[in-house]
Amino acid sequence: MDKVVSSIQEAIRACGLRDGMTISFHHHLRSGDYVLNMVVDEIAKMGIRDLTINASSIHDGQAAVVEHMRSGVITGLETNYCGPAVGREISRGVLKNPMIFRTHGGRPASLAAGKSHIDVAFIAAPTADTMGNCTGKVGKSACGALGYAFEDAMYADKVVVITDNLVPYPMLGWSLSEDKVDYVVAVDAIGNPAGIVSGTTKMTKDPVALRIADFAAKAIDAAGLLKDGFSFQTGAGGASLAAAAYVRDIMRTRGIKGSYALGGITGYMVEMLEEGLFESIQDVQCFDLKAVESLRSDPRHQEITSTQYASPDAKSTAASSLDAVVLGATQIDTDFNVNVHTDSRGYIIGGSGGHTDVADCAKLTVIVSPVSRARMPVIVDKVLTVSTPGKCVDILVTQYGIAVNPLRPDLKEKYLAAKLPVKDIQELKAIAERLNGAPHPLELKKERVVAHVLYRDDSPLDEIYCVE
Amino acid sequence: MDKVVSSIQEAIRACGLRDGMTISFHHHLRSGDYVLNMVVDEIAKMGIRDLTINASSIHDGQAAVVEHMRSGVITGLETNYCGPAVGREISRGVLKNPMIFRTHGGRPASLAAGKSHIDVAFIAAPTADTMGNCTGKVGKSACGALGYAFEDAMYADKVVVITDNLVPYPMLGWSLSEDKVDYVVAVDAIGNPAGIVSGTTKMTKDPVALRIADFAAKAIDAAGLLKDGFSFQTGAGGASLAAAAYVRDIMRTRGIKGSYALGGITGYMVEMLEEGLFESIQDVQCFDLKAVESLRSDPRHQEITSTQYASPDAKSTAASSLDAVVLGATQIDTDFNVNVHTDSRGYIIGGSGGHTDVADCAKLTVIVSPVSRARMPVIVDKVLTVSTPGKCVDILVTQYGIAVNPLRPDLKEKYLAAKLPVKDIQELKAIAERLNGAPHPLELKKERVVAHVLYRDDSPLDEIYCVE
Repeated sequence: MDKVVSSIQEAIRACGLRDGMTISFHHHLRSGDYVLNMVVDEIAKMGIRDLTINASSIHDGQAAVVEHMRSGVITGLETNYCGPAVGREISRGVLKNPMIFRTHGGRPASLAAGKSHIDVAFIAAPTADTMGNCTGKVGKSACGALGYAFEDAMYADKVVVITDNLVPYPMLGWSLSEDKVDYVVAVDAIGNPAGIVSGTTKMTKDPVALRIADFAAKAIDAAGLLKDGFSFQTGAGGASLAAAAYVRDIMRTRGIKGSYALGGITGYMVEMLEEGLFESIQDVQCFDLKAVESLRSDPRHQEITSTQYASPDAKSTAASSLDAVVLGATQIDTDFNVNVHTDSRGYIIGGSGGHTDVADCAKLTVIVSPVSRARMPVIVDKVLTVSTPGKCVDILVTQYGIAVNPLRPDLKEKYLAAKLPVKDIQELKAIAERLNGAPHPLELKKERVVAHVLYRDDSPLDEIYCVE
Repeated sequence: MDKVVSSIQEAIRACGLRDGMTISFHHHLRSGDYVLNMVVDEIAKMGIRDLTINASSIHDGQAAVVEHMRSGVITGLETNYCGPAVGREISRGVLKNPMIFRTHGGRPASLAAGKSHIDVAFIAAPTADTMGNCTGKVGKSACGALGYAFEDAMYADKVVVITDNLVPYPMLGWSLSEDKVDYVVAVDAIGNPAGIVSGTTKMTKDPVALRIADFAAKAIDAAGLLKDGFSFQTGAGGASLAAAAYVRDIMRTRGIKGSYALGGITGYMVEMLEEGLFESIQDVQCFDLKAVESLRSDPRHQEITSTQYASPDAKSTAASSLDAVVLGATQIDTDFNVNVHTDSRGYIIGGSGGHTDVADCAKLTVIVSPVSRARMPVIVDKVLTVSTPGKCVDILVTQYGIAVNPLRPDLKEKYLAAKLPVKDIQELKAIAERLNGAPHPLELKKERVVAHVLYRDDSPLDEIYCVE
């Protein structure tokens, strides 16, 4: 009478998985996820081949999947982010078909519109009941929000929930509900807790990053956005997170009460909530344990689906009301196009995730980056891969000053009035080249496309070529 | 930048509403709802005609809509329940096209499958923010769960939220989310609090009802269902609610811990939750203030969508795991078919609501009814309208004994063993006729169909004819 089957293999068989189908995974267990490889290993044993994986992201912890790409079990990949371990091999040509990069908002829109289709979704669930109600908030593998899994459950033909904490029906506090689930499998562990979420996200002490972050906060302020009702997203690393610290200082000093923090959520954002600097958090994904605990216990901290987060086809989203977002870049060109997909040699090392979505939506999109990294200039004439088009970017903040997109003369005026160090982007590029020398232009063979990069509306944005 | 428009008329215009379209409403404000008539009045003023209303239910408080049916503004009606005030007029032929009756589970399934379609959904929301996130849990017109409104928001082309408690974005604790909402309208009052929910649902003192309820509880027990994990739904009126009191006594005495209570929820079910007799409540709709308060404050009391409640196309539902349900009947025939649509003269006075869904799903479906009402026999040779087919019904419990559907010989055996007063349904029918005389067979003209009754899978089940 319940949906529990005895093994992943039994679930795969019951779903009627066949050669050529598409299977899906979410990435909330991040690099600690065991489920993707447990499922693909099982599929390989069963002799099923030529599958496409549609995953919200692929992290280095799932690099074992490369062997299944090599053997032809997996021949396609659709994802929003692909870490370097798998990315490098795809750049070398291991995958039969070109992979497809979408964005965190574009993926649910594409599924809803039927432009992409999932035959069987495998959902790693830190807690599930015997009918498939499930959540990421509790359990030994708790990862917090399951924002990217909702649409897999909604639109896949068959849905398998895989859990290491099976509880009686009906569980309390489900995130995804039973009406969409076909089978439930209990396993010993869906992930390695150490890899799922970091204990706490650490604030950088790098003086360059702090200088950039300080400029970024001042740029948000000078744009007139730091006032009651302020909404904010920032990343978890380096200058992005540090920008939050400087924004926090300004908000404290002036007694500003923001409305919401958005995005992949860190403990730092939770502290700002608890301090009363924000009224709420809209959480599509948790980045650390403090965020998980807050989502579990604080009703002001709310889980949202990836559609609610940033679908371009939604009637509105948390992203579309966003005031300011601080984002990184591996490269940015003089037209403000940003690359977060490939490194300076053309290897896949990431992907947009929500970068493009929030950049397109926010009133102010701030790219923070040092002018160079590992002696390679970040600012270039033309990015190797366009991840986020320049039209979505308002300013670039570096340790040498702030470049304003010519599309925003209003901002330039405000920054000059506020005596912020406004620089032309060409000038910042020249600084980087003076420091490190001009880079040798990369000679890409452009013989074989290994990845299509789609914009958030599924239209073609760029292509990535085989490197070796 | 937000979705707030100044009036209902402006929202109607912005949605592009035209002659011949379908508009929808939910019934969580019950007879106190103002929104249906506010919207239809406005539409009439604007000169738009020939609309179909798709409403989860129509109560007597919305009887003013009859004038708009008479004038041709409204020419079609699809609903799961239609109270006598509107029902009587439809039975007299006021509506141009035959109305369509679905069930609470069939309606969301039909919308999801595209068998029925909503052009513009109007959602009465006791609290909403400026981007359309909304809930029924708080606000002066709080009605609790908004279970039947989720699918309107999900599947309608355009969605208008109408609220009398507009709050800043993003609100906390939304039930329906902004990604599905086009416009928000603030009005003075969406309903009359006195009509929305009753203060408390009162337990009957009628000795006949209590005797029936006692038999019903014993029948549930003798079926072997009253044990740990027991799940239960019962109605809010008369013998149905009283059955809960007898079930409660048995559970208390034996220390039974049930799993969940389901359905339209009353304070009585809340008390059973609070007493530890159930682990949780799955709530698609609240019937009284105590249920509203519990949904707001007790995390064990969970709001579910009508899909999660009882959609026949869902992969499972709260209904499909149900052990026992106690339901009423206006008529039941000797094949155990139940009528809850029409009175003994053939007038529409109700509808299935979730009756058919839970009867089809539950392990034990108990119909409770006195053998006659107002000197009309309830048990007849053939019901005027088949609302719930006999195959979904297990037993009929009356004050003179329990009739077991011949499809369940196992139950009959258990009841005889338990020395319950098992009677043949013909015998119960004869008792009613001895008491009141045999009814005059109703001569229906059957010239004009005024309503099609659909089974929960949208297949035709019966037809209702014009009476006058």
